[in-house]
Amino acid sequence: MIEASIIGITGYAGIELFRLLRQHPRVKIRELISNSNAGKKLADVYPQFTGEDEIFLQEYDPEKVSESDIVFTALPHGVSQEIVGELYKQDTRIVDLSGDFRYQKVARYEKWYEVEHQYPQFLSEAVYGLVEINRSKIKNANLVGNPGCYPTASLLGLMPLVKEDLTSTDSIIIDAKSGVSGAGRSLKKSSHFCEADESIKAYKIANHRHTSEIESVLEDVSGNRTMVSFTPHLVPMKRGILATIYLNLKRDIKETKVLDIYNNFYANDEFVQVLTASKTPETKYVAGTNYCHLGVKLDDRNKRLVIVSTIDNLGKGAAGQAVQNMNIMFGFSEQCGLEATGVFP
Amino acid sequence: MIEASIIGITGYAGIELFRLLRQHPRVKIRELISNSNAGKKLADVYPQFTGEDEIFLQEYDPEKVSESDIVFTALPHGVSQEIVGELYKQDTRIVDLSGDFRYQKVARYEKWYEVEHQYPQFLSEAVYGLVEINRSKIKNANLVGNPGCYPTASLLGLMPLVKEDLTSTDSIIIDAKSGVSGAGRSLKKSSHFCEADESIKAYKIANHRHTSEIESVLEDVSGNRTMVSFTPHLVPMKRGILATIYLNLKRDIKETKVLDIYNNFYANDEFVQVLTASKTPETKYVAGTNYCHLGVKLDDRNKRLVIVSTIDNLGKGAAGQAVQNMNIMFGFSEQCGLEATGVFP
Amino acid sequence: MIEASIIGITGYAGIELFRLLRQHPRVKIRELISNSNAGKKLADVYPQFTGEDEIFLQEYDPEKVSESDIVFTALPHGVSQEIVGELYKQDTRIVDLSGDFRYQKVARYEKWYEVEHQYPQFLSEAVYGLVEINRSKIKNANLVGNPGCYPTASLLGLMPLVKEDLTSTDSIIIDAKSGVSGAGRSLKKSSHFCEADESIKAYKIANHRHTSEIESVLEDVSGNRTMVSFTPHLVPMKRGILATIYLNLKRDIKETKVLDIYNNFYANDEFVQVLTASKTPETKYVAGTNYCHLGVKLDDRNKRLVIVSTIDNLGKGAAGQAVQNMNIMFGFSEQCGLEATGVFP
Amino acid sequence: MIEASIIGITGYAGIELFRLLRQHPRVKIRELISNSNAGKKLADVYPQFTGEDEIFLQEYDPEKVSESDIVFTALPHGVSQEIVGELYKQDTRIVDLSGDFRYQKVARYEKWYEVEHQYPQFLSEAVYGLVEINRSKIKNANLVGNPGCYPTASLLGLMPLVKEDLTSTDSIIIDAKSGVSGAGRSLKKSSHFCEADESIKAYKIANHRHTSEIESVLEDVSGNRTMVSFTPHLVPMKRGILATIYLNLKRDIKETKVLDIYNNFYANDEFVQVLTASKTPETKYVAGTNYCHLGVKLDDRNKRLVIVSTIDNLGKGAAGQAVQNMNIMFGFSEQCGLEATGVFP
Repeated sequence: MIEASIIGITGYAGIELFRLLRQHPRVKIRELISNSNAGKKLADVYPQFTGEDEIFLQEYDPEKVSESDIVFTALPHGVSQEIVGELYKQDTRIVDLSGDFRYQKVARYEKWYEVEHQYPQFLSEAVYGLVEINRSKIKNANLVGNPGCYPTASLLGLMPLVKEDLTSTDSIIIDAKSGVSGAGRSLKKSSHFCEADESIKAYKIANHRHTSEIESVLEDVSGNRTMVSFTPHLVPMKRGILATIYLNLKRDIKETKVLDIYNNFYANDEFVQVLTASKTPETKYVAGTNYCHLGVKLDDRNKRLVIVSTIDNLGKGAAGQAVQNMNIMFGFSEQCGLEATGVFP
Repeated sequence: MIEASIIGITGYAGIELFRLLRQHPRVKIRELISNSNAGKKLADVYPQFTGEDEIFLQEYDPEKVSESDIVFTALPHGVSQEIVGELYKQDTRIVDLSGDFRYQKVARYEKWYEVEHQYPQFLSEAVYGLVEINRSKIKNANLVGNPGCYPTASLLGLMPLVKEDLTSTDSIIIDAKSGVSGAGRSLKKSSHFCEADESIKAYKIANHRHTSEIESVLEDVSGNRTMVSFTPHLVPMKRGILATIYLNLKRDIKETKVLDIYNNFYANDEFVQVLTASKTPETKYVAGTNYCHLGVKLDDRNKRLVIVSTIDNLGKGAAGQAVQNMNIMFGFSEQCGLEATGVFP
Repeated sequence: MIEASIIGITGYAGIELFRLLRQHPRVKIRELISNSNAGKKLADVYPQFTGEDEIFLQEYDPEKVSESDIVFTALPHGVSQEIVGELYKQDTRIVDLSGDFRYQKVARYEKWYEVEHQYPQFLSEAVYGLVEINRSKIKNANLVGNPGCYPTASLLGLMPLVKEDLTSTDSIIIDAKSGVSGAGRSLKKSSHFCEADESIKAYKIANHRHTSEIESVLEDVSGNRTMVSFTPHLVPMKRGILATIYLNLKRDIKETKVLDIYNNFYANDEFVQVLTASKTPETKYVAGTNYCHLGVKLDDRNKRLVIVSTIDNLGKGAAGQAVQNMNIMFGFSEQCGLEATGVFP
Repeated sequence: MIEASIIGITGYAGIELFRLLRQHPRVKIRELISNSNAGKKLADVYPQFTGEDEIFLQEYDPEKVSESDIVFTALPHGVSQEIVGELYKQDTRIVDLSGDFRYQKVARYEKWYEVEHQYPQFLSEAVYGLVEINRSKIKNANLVGNPGCYPTASLLGLMPLVKEDLTSTDSIIIDAKSGVSGAGRSLKKSSHFCEADESIKAYKIANHRHTSEIESVLEDVSGNRTMVSFTPHLVPMKRGILATIYLNLKRDIKETKVLDIYNNFYANDEFVQVLTASKTPETKYVAGTNYCHLGVKLDDRNKRLVIVSTIDNLGKGAAGQAVQNMNIMFGFSEQCGLEATGVFP
């Protein structure tokens, strides 16, 4: 039994973390930090916990929090790095859900996030928490930069091909669609019900921060400079990301062979499921879970490969993956606490 | 460890039962019956189970099924009674999710369902599975008629008052709103996305079958003839029932006193939560769970009481309650396998 | 051709007014007032008007505005009365969409709205703009208090019975369900997409302001003191109100006779359609229009009448009715500019 | 005043045509054909027309229909060509909304639609009804093949560049997202509310029929063999298509210059609006209208152009465009009957 704390419980990723950790058989919750709701009963902020009358939200107190075996930080970037840096110096093990510790190179971070990093010295010690490529590093990590939601969906779709050097890196186009929870719990017009409902839009075309996160990892893995086109879209649903990825293959290769490559790559990854040839994934089948479903289709006419990757943005794209990282850091079974199937329909 | 089978896995209640039983620590699944999909892999019918390659759907075989410790039947009424009758004769313990075994009086059933009952002799042996009023009977029951979704929400809202003989029984009005999953998985125009989305309607005003189920139970409990007005509505969401109940009180009584009555009545019922005075329930906070949230408001101006009762129609209104019934029948903790919080948002 | 101005174009009712007036054959738009967006191009605030490059939003200037033949005020209550009072003193004809001029008795307004009225002297001159009961008064009115959305749906459902003195006035229960646009365009958590989507809730039980508006009008018409139970609900859709109304009849009467009463009452009201016996209304069939659809069902078992009334909260419940009022005030055909059918699906 | 008939009024495109033609100042409806609902009152099939008691649906009778000045056929492909062929032989002017008369080359049609064409001789006489490129041909056409919804959105996004020979034709990727009405009114599991709601999926990757329609037109215009990648997606909303188009430019060119090209190309096309540089389109702003909104963004890093094109699939993507074609065929103003703004929100 380990003790875990969550800093930033008021947002959707924070409360999803609590939902998962609460039913995790190896975890005891220590502190639930929410400065904006400190002192309140959890059930008063989140009525789905009505009846749990002894759980209260706390103000952030570094001393108390640092006594946890692990701390999850679910805070906006910039804010997160200050708290993480402080805790990390005191030897606390941390999974940070912000963008602040996902980059090896501080310059790239600062360029895309337009803030100065307060703890650049920790970037090289932080491990990028995409389990399927960094499992062994995560095991011994004390600081894990939990991947972004779009990068998780995109990279899981691309990794097998990049590892095999099959994709022409300048041809990658990622057209990603996200549910509105990806835009967070802060009030804004684009998340107002009557503005988001019954409409779809693209946003931040060619300049979304996750572009740089995707490229960083692809470059690390391939060794080649990579520039992708990444377009996020907002879809009128609560949860889910579907990334449709297009790329040109370097070599002539059959679809069955491509499927083999994917199946081999993910042979030991329970949470990534490669669908059989005739099937395409839908976000509802991974909603509420830590799963990624991948569909692969080779367009025989133009030899372009189309990969469809689906995750729950708050599951494998945030809180689920954070718990998976914790499981690895503490030697638990990777699926521990993450076995529940999503609610359907 | 007991062995459970589900007959009728193709509908929403059936698959929700499987979702719950699959993660139940005291249950091993024996047979998953779906005549329409017999022989198929579960994951091919329900891709949320992709990766579970050994689970197949079976054709109904009474001999095999009757070896289960418990059988859940999630079939249309009429169809259900034949299979339940047959199995029950062979001493199989059954929780039936249809309307076929919810009535003590066959005449009422036959009048409202407009079918002849094939096994009227079993009605008196069947126990109505509303745990909060029949817990001790359920313990020894071999046949449980699992309550309907609307009756569950309505009765949980009304029980404390009826027990205390506080409500004028001819004044009860139940205005109920349900998500579209309540209309089932069979294709029909009113459940077609473009017809159901962005619209609300009332249906079967003054003649919905659940009216008679609600009245039956109210009469059993109160001993008085009861006629309610019950109006169901279809709401553009997947899951959830919210019943707004209006009634006149027999005696002058304060809201705080009414709340006391509710709190006392449900003091030992984990799955029914009475909200404090200023709060009103919302279906999202019980979605995916076995909980019922109740809000009580006394209109001081006209002395009418308004009770708002929310459940998940597939949770406490169907599969969740069925599992709760099983837990009681087999002496498990009532919450066993039902602890997970719903997915939010 | 008359000249119309709209004050408060940034909210949903204001922009719906513009949509209707823009295509009205007898109206020329003079001023579009939005203090928060003054100086901006309309199409920059509302991209559905992209291409209309000459329309700009203005700051409120009483002198300019008062030169209009008619002014529509779509402002929050309290704010509205100051502007309306000022303009009305200068002989401007006004349709006010707020609650400020809907009451004859200032005490009732001040009690329910909890603000002091700045122009109580104008209340007796203002006409309540429910066309179907006040058509002749509206013709000569200079100040029309445009009815609230819930009162419109409720009163149209109740009027024929009240006029015939058929309803026992203490038995009226109105269970109303509204789309989220009824909560306005201001950002708030309950209108945040992920909080409103896939959920239904009741709110302001027994104390919503519209209760008093409904009672006022019922009392005016019936001459009897009236207290209704009114419960509004928020439904995950953009537009539409469905009010399910329950009441006890004073006399024994057949459903066909009740339908006759409704059909006679609305014989000359194009915008109120009484459905034939077997049908029940759905909000999607009136969405985007000025229509009200009414369904009537007598519960033979308990002699309670159930009336279902549907409108578009922004149509007949706000902007559509405001235009209908204007048509009458200026002697235009009542349907002028309101003929378009709603978009379906 | 001309007389128009609609064959196939039971589907979404058919009823949208009626909605538009009904309020068209130059059109009188002659026959509304629906074999499945022949003899019924329109308002009984489509309650949004409650009150219009004299409009009935008819069985198809070629003699009666052929007396119309124009006939709109909104039928499934294959079925449509037989009726269209028959009517066309009798000199009836027709706008066909199916895929049957959109192709010049019968071989391409037969390959992608997998049916034999009954009237290949009429293909060369039929005009592809994309007004913005074929306006002058449409003027004198007797048979117009009304473009498909996806092709309309895609081609309007691509035309200016293809005309200028700026796009490398083998680089075109069209990632399109459609509301569920695009899947029609026939019942199917993927359009069942609980299956479509809160989920997004890709479908028919690399083999959707509209691929061939898009390529046909691009080849006609460019003179070059063209193969695009086209992926349609289903989005949980009723109406709207958003196509995100990616392509490599043949020459180095600035974004402002690209915008100029688009603005020039569509200078005289009221229904295509090119947004200014900083803006991106959303489907809600064109819902219910005949408009197309285009956004253009050049990714400076990789010189890839991203074009976002939005239409209402039932508006400019079907019925709206059909009316626009009729307007041109009969010398009416192109906007006649299509001026109404969409309902917002």
